Amino acid sequence: MNYEIPGHLEVKKGHLHIGGVDTVQLAQQYGTPLYVTNEDRLRDNYRRFAKAFKGVPLFFAAKSNNSLVVQRILAQEGAGADAFSDGEIYLARLAGIPAQKILFTGNSKTDAELAYAVEAGVMVSIDSHDELISLSHIAKAHGKTMNVAFRVNPEISGDTHPKLATGLKISKFGIPRQEIVDTYKEASKLPGINPVGIHCHIGSQILEVSPYVETVNRMMDLVAQISKFVDLEFVDIGGGFGIPYQKDVKAPTPQDYAKAILPLYRKRCKEIGISPELHIEPGRYIVADTTVLLTHVNTVKKAYSTFIGVDAGFNTLIRPAMYDSYHEVVVANKADKKSASTYTVAGPICESGDILARDRKLPQVKKDDIIALLDAGAYGFCMSSQYLARPRSAEVLIHDGQAELIRKRETYDDLIQNQLIPGRLL
Amino acid sequence: MNYEIPGHLEVKKGHLHIGGVDTVQLAQQYGTPLYVTNEDRLRDNYRRFAKAFKGVPLFFAAKSNNSLVVQRILAQEGAGADAFSDGEIYLARLAGIPAQKILFTGNSKTDAELAYAVEAGVMVSIDSHDELISLSHIAKAHGKTMNVAFRVNPEISGDTHPKLATGLKISKFGIPRQEIVDTYKEASKLPGINPVGIHCHIGSQILEVSPYVETVNRMMDLVAQISKFVDLEFVDIGGGFGIPYQKDVKAPTPQDYAKAILPLYRKRCKEIGISPELHIEPGRYIVADTTVLLTHVNTVKKAYSTFIGVDAGFNTLIRPAMYDSYHEVVVANKADKKSASTYTVAGPICESGDILARDRKLPQVKKDDIIALLDAGAYGFCMSSQYLARPRSAEVLIHDGQAELIRKRETYDDLIQNQLIPGRLL
Ligand SMILES: Cc1ncc(COP(=O)(O)O)c(C=O)c1O
Ligand SMILES: Cc1ncc(COP(=O)(O)O)c(C=O)c1O
Repeated sequence: MNYEIPGHLEVKKGHLHIGGVDTVQLAQQYGTPLYVTNEDRLRDNYRRFAKAFKGVPLFFAAKSNNSLVVQRILAQEGAGADAFSDGEIYLARLAGIPAQKILFTGNSKTDAELAYAVEAGVMVSIDSHDELISLSHIAKAHGKTMNVAFRVNPEISGDTHPKLATGLKISKFGIPRQEIVDTYKEASKLPGINPVGIHCHIGSQILEVSPYVETVNRMMDLVAQISKFVDLEFVDIGGGFGIPYQKDVKAPTPQDYAKAILPLYRKRCKEIGISPELHIEPGRYIVADTTVLLTHVNTVKKAYSTFIGVDAGFNTLIRPAMYDSYHEVVVANKADKKSASTYTVAGPICESGDILARDRKLPQVKKDDIIALLDAGAYGFCMSSQYLARPRSAEVLIHDGQAELIRKRETYDDLIQNQLIPGRLL
Repeated sequence: MNYEIPGHLEVKKGHLHIGGVDTVQLAQQYGTPLYVTNEDRLRDNYRRFAKAFKGVPLFFAAKSNNSLVVQRILAQEGAGADAFSDGEIYLARLAGIPAQKILFTGNSKTDAELAYAVEAGVMVSIDSHDELISLSHIAKAHGKTMNVAFRVNPEISGDTHPKLATGLKISKFGIPRQEIVDTYKEASKLPGINPVGIHCHIGSQILEVSPYVETVNRMMDLVAQISKFVDLEFVDIGGGFGIPYQKDVKAPTPQDYAKAILPLYRKRCKEIGISPELHIEPGRYIVADTTVLLTHVNTVKKAYSTFIGVDAGFNTLIRPAMYDSYHEVVVANKADKKSASTYTVAGPICESGDILARDRKLPQVKKDDIIALLDAGAYGFCMSSQYLARPRSAEVLIHDGQAELIRKRETYDDLIQNQLIPGRLL
């Protein structure tokens, strides 16, 4: 092995285990591709973050993993949710996250979504002036007043993949900084609107604390101005806390983030003479390393590279193809074997970009081996598709050394269930 | 309008029409996002291709659009199918494409898929030596003999997006050229295997004829060698025929391709003294321009760019975010208005890369306008996901000036139907 296997993963009798359960047996029992999530690790991650950010409500970014069971477990731990669509509000509430702990954060919300949010009684992070006006109308029509924040563009550059950097000047998100004060002024006069917060999110998979320091400073500059005429109850600085996908990468711990953010935040609040809550929205950090994706080796082929053809592709896990993301690879049934060759792990999709991992040193791989892709819990199943008419994979949860099926594997029926064929074409 | 609207689209009373039907009314009636496909255009495209390639069987690349109705219509037109997975074999057969007209072309097939193919009696394009051995075993166990081709890597570079170039030396697809002769020799002795064809596919959205000329020459060099000991019944040169997404781009017509390919192919066959059928696998060309994607404007926001926030994102149409693809944009309810400003069309997904179209000159756009993205019929719905818990969109078919629903819009139920919550977590 060319890296240390994280704590909740271990190798026993040559097989990779997660939460004490043999992944090779899981692959046999449930088939592949298979997402396997460790409940203990999920709770641990949440608690570690919550402890470091004591007193700071965590709004779990459901976008990273909106599985009902994952959200149910986080609800038990006390999490709120950042929901980006009406569907995510629905799932979060179904999982037991109370409406008042949900912030609806979409950037392009339909009127129907806003109406849904009004009925549900969640908080709304407003992304544009059009949305402010719509929400005011809809709330008024429902005879309700909505607690809202505005998403602002802090014009920061998180050092991350450009597609994920959401707080850049050029980004589509948020109200431009120079309009923000006027927007709060207008909002505080509009019916149905109660501005109580301010919100931003600078990007994802950020591996430094400095962008957060910059963010807090920029946000508090705005807060100082806004607080002259609005009583802010919270300042939400979003998520984006990175994890070490490559085991030799150094990632800040939750404590590192907290140490960089909390004293600065309190100092700035004190200077302004206010005491709004700080909110954060971690997604990836909470779920990524809880989950492995198991996939079966169909072929090994020596061509320009030596390709391992597996049964998971970018239909199953899109991150490597879409963002050039790195996931560690373990040969689950040969996890104690020494690296022998360099392999490229390729999926079963008809595009050259369907590569899950490039040029990895692995033990000798053969057809019918099981490959585990680590850290697949964030932006994994939730981004999967039925491309090439491939039914989506199953998910199991590991708890107390037992596996429980939490999502049934799709079948052909799932491919056709919403399709209708006009009689004249039969 | 800064480009000519294709024939089956037209502007009447300021509204974009498809197949004679008002897209603005369609958006109202069926909601958005909405895929709208014109049956006549689909049949026309197929016929145009089939006419140019008279006598050459077309294997429609189902991966580009595997909707049952689309495949049903193409089945009526006489199409075969290139199916990349068992699910695609299932859909093609359900749509009425006969098994003997289906070529199973996956690059990393499971044994279960191979068994399915054996039972279905389709032809198989074998991608690796491991697969050859598996198929032989499985076919033998079923007491069947399978007609097979081998996918070869012609080591060509189609001038296309690197992620889509599938015939490069470095690609994961096919048997390396130098092994191909030995592979046919081995195959012709294996039980259950009847080698009858040779197959390649060089990439997608190719806008020149020259890569096909190169392909035919390289394939026929191999065919000359293989024909010494195997009677080849077909030579399949794949798909990839591009379309002019940008209306000022020049794309070859089917006749242009046919003129470049057919005489050369016949000449090379004659030289070798054989007469296998030529097969081709067009996908995109047949379906892309049959379909528009309608999406609703939720907000218009002046920030660094002027952003139009719509309700379709890369969950609905992934091509712009994943491949930087270009789709023409029409404001469907203002299709006769002059361009007024430059807009960027952004989706409702939480990532900066969720941009459908950048810096387009459009008439003045307002909330509640309807935007049409053209040429959305290939790699559109079939690549869509439920990312951010967004139910997938509906599809309608236009025929005889009437719209028919061919895929129901998903609901929240579709988000949870396969999920299971362990009792202890309730
Ligand atoms: C508004 C908002 N908050 C939080 C997150 C979570 O980011 P991460 O999963 O990187 O923590 C995102 C991710 O896109 C987001 O858009
Ligand atoms: C084997 C094969 N044939 C045909 C096609 C169709 O390509 P296009 O839609 O560009 O015609 C593809 C596309 O990936 C393919 O992989």
